[in-house]
Amino acid sequence: LRDSIITLTTDFGTQSVYVAVMKGVILGICPSVRLLDLTHEIAPQNLGHAAFFLATTIPYFPKTVIHVIVVDPGVGTERSLLYVNLDGRRLLVPDNGCWMELARRLGGCPEVIRLEDRRFWRTAISSTFHGRDILAPVAAHLSLGIDPHDLGPVADSWSDLKLPPPQLSADRLMGEVLFVDHFGNLITNISGESIAGLKGKVKILVTQHEIERQARTYGEVEPGSLLFLISSFGLLEIAERNGSAAKRLHAGAGTPVVVHKAQS
Amino acid sequence: LRDSIITLTTDFGTQSVYVAVMKGVILGICPSVRLLDLTHEIAPQNLGHAAFFLATTIPYFPKTVIHVIVVDPGVGTERSLLYVNLDGRRLLVPDNGCWMELARRLGGCPEVIRLEDRRFWRTAISSTFHGRDILAPVAAHLSLGIDPHDLGPVADSWSDLKLPPPQLSADRLMGEVLFVDHFGNLITNISGESIAGLKGKVKILVTQHEIERQARTYGEVEPGSLLFLISSFGLLEIAERNGSAAKRLHAGAGTPVVVHKAQS
Amino acid sequence: LRDSIITLTTDFGTQSVYVAVMKGVILGICPSVRLLDLTHEIAPQNLGHAAFFLATTIPYFPKTVIHVIVVDPGVGTERSLLYVNLDGRRLLVPDNGCWMELARRLGGCPEVIRLEDRRFWRTAISSTFHGRDILAPVAAHLSLGIDPHDLGPVADSWSDLKLPPPQLSADRLMGEVLFVDHFGNLITNISGESIAGLKGKVKILVTQHEIERQARTYGEVEPGSLLFLISSFGLLEIAERNGSAAKRLHAGAGTPVVVHKAQS
Repeated sequence: LRDSIITLTTDFGTQSVYVAVMKGVILGICPSVRLLDLTHEIAPQNLGHAAFFLATTIPYFPKTVIHVIVVDPGVGTERSLLYVNLDGRRLLVPDNGCWMELARRLGGCPEVIRLEDRRFWRTAISSTFHGRDILAPVAAHLSLGIDPHDLGPVADSWSDLKLPPPQLSADRLMGEVLFVDHFGNLITNISGESIAGLKGKVKILVTQHEIERQARTYGEVEPGSLLFLISSFGLLEIAERNGSAAKRLHAGAGTPVVVHKAQS
Repeated sequence: LRDSIITLTTDFGTQSVYVAVMKGVILGICPSVRLLDLTHEIAPQNLGHAAFFLATTIPYFPKTVIHVIVVDPGVGTERSLLYVNLDGRRLLVPDNGCWMELARRLGGCPEVIRLEDRRFWRTAISSTFHGRDILAPVAAHLSLGIDPHDLGPVADSWSDLKLPPPQLSADRLMGEVLFVDHFGNLITNISGESIAGLKGKVKILVTQHEIERQARTYGEVEPGSLLFLISSFGLLEIAERNGSAAKRLHAGAGTPVVVHKAQS
Repeated sequence: LRDSIITLTTDFGTQSVYVAVMKGVILGICPSVRLLDLTHEIAPQNLGHAAFFLATTIPYFPKTVIHVIVVDPGVGTERSLLYVNLDGRRLLVPDNGCWMELARRLGGCPEVIRLEDRRFWRTAISSTFHGRDILAPVAAHLSLGIDPHDLGPVADSWSDLKLPPPQLSADRLMGEVLFVDHFGNLITNISGESIAGLKGKVKILVTQHEIERQARTYGEVEPGSLLFLISSFGLLEIAERNGSAAKRLHAGAGTPVVVHKAQS
């Protein structure tokens, strides 16, 4: 328990009182737990962004860690809050499906418990901040070693959320930008495998720009040039060396991206 | 001492060398202390924002924690630096009153010590960065267990700072926006209790917009609708579901807000 | 090992999956290590900014800490990754010279090891994210106590990078803005010592504005006034009290700054 770690992933922003309040609640119950910020910059109430973030990052963490996720547009409505165990990886998360892409990526069968036992909650429960009132105290109690089955009943159904899958055909792939990183690189939902399936040289079409230069890394092209590559996470990424592809191409999350076979 | 925690609350910004430098100074004196960022995004030199942040967040923390606050427009002038003990909650803070709203909220009688003993400071003291030169090393020494009375003399007066109180009358309340959160929700200085005191249905007036829809939580209204609610901290909050009330209403910190009884 | 600390300094931004992934990889190898964010807001791929940040902050940390720096425009090219020991301060950093300003400031002779032994890397190495694949796992293994000489061969040459030095003459100094802080203060590359060398009253010229008011600290001048001072790090700093000198003077990193002797 000494080294137990709770991570926080929210859309609260870094200037927020909400994050500090959750940290206080957790430490009030379990002062020895170590807190780790994953991000507080999930786009506000954007479950797709949360799904991408969780599926990309959580697999790298050891199973000793408890992950608290607060992206919760349905706070205070009838939606449940869940404890999810994915082959030993433990999440506390609103029942909005944002963890399902991660679950599919990890495989196996999730164990899901609906948070219902108020013994592990704060005494007064607000309608707008269940991160403070329910998720934070439950995470702290879990890190103290309580049995997750004490939290509530096992659930056998829950909300799903799918990231938009690319459309595949024999000679092209139609997908979209999932995420624009800090450098302005466009991360798409098109996998390197599906591009390999086109067997041959390809071109990328984004916002009426055609990108022909495939590279292994940014430094292979001239500064200011556009390129595409298979990112370190196995997805098609469009970049400008020493610049922002997002600005150059006027593209953002949701922008359509087409991969088609180059004329040969 | 093993699990002692020092939190940092500043207006330095996250890209800042200043925060990293303070972390280095603290760890140089007490390598085993755990550091916790509350926020570094207090609006620059904005004592009202700091006062709201501290009053809202610090009550949730356990008393084992030491809180360092560096929002310090008077750095290098004659203003003092203080050790403040609020019924066991320990703060290190410039004497500018930004902790007084917290003190009033917690009640009780503060113990205040003026930092004067240079044994616990860095050797060279700059005129512009007392966070590094005084507050950080004093926090580290406190976490090592020194007696706070060694830090300097007990003070019997100090600066005060009051958040603007709402003006109350029999049929309306006139207040203002204290803080705009990351979602664009407007957090005001008008309490839920004072609104209940108006006994009956109320309407909100902000920047010439009238808001009639009171809700318990965001999800009760249609996407794009404005609503008001009593926030999870007991204050009037104006929001747009799935949007930013701040943008929609062209409102920000300091914008006047009026609550008046609805015609019946 | 209990209290070993790894700091992270990157240009990944706080919303980034990349930072969270690196934290996961490190904790997967060494679950008891404490992670500390220095900043993730180095200007994208800006080695000069990284050099200034490291030279300013690292000297304050104790030697027990391991510092990981990922500002890496050359990722995936032939550039090496380095373990650098500066009189006990340990860095893991791409071979792009961004640590050399720090090394010059600390003095002494660096011990440099080229990371080559893949035993301490992840199994699959991408071309675009060596922070995850090499630097994070190597940092974790170092915190577990491995001998740095197991990481690869000792290097006897490496890339250098110099921050632009000011030009000095008998009656004036020509430098530039190195960094604009969160308050809009302009931090220059002109040292207090070099200004003292001009022997007498000086004026500052920035973007065709002349600043004559030297102060010890901000609070000495009227709100809204421009001033210059020798910063807490010993460098010429140009500020506006309660405002942003950067906005007022339309200045940013790279803007020329001239110090000349005032007519007497």
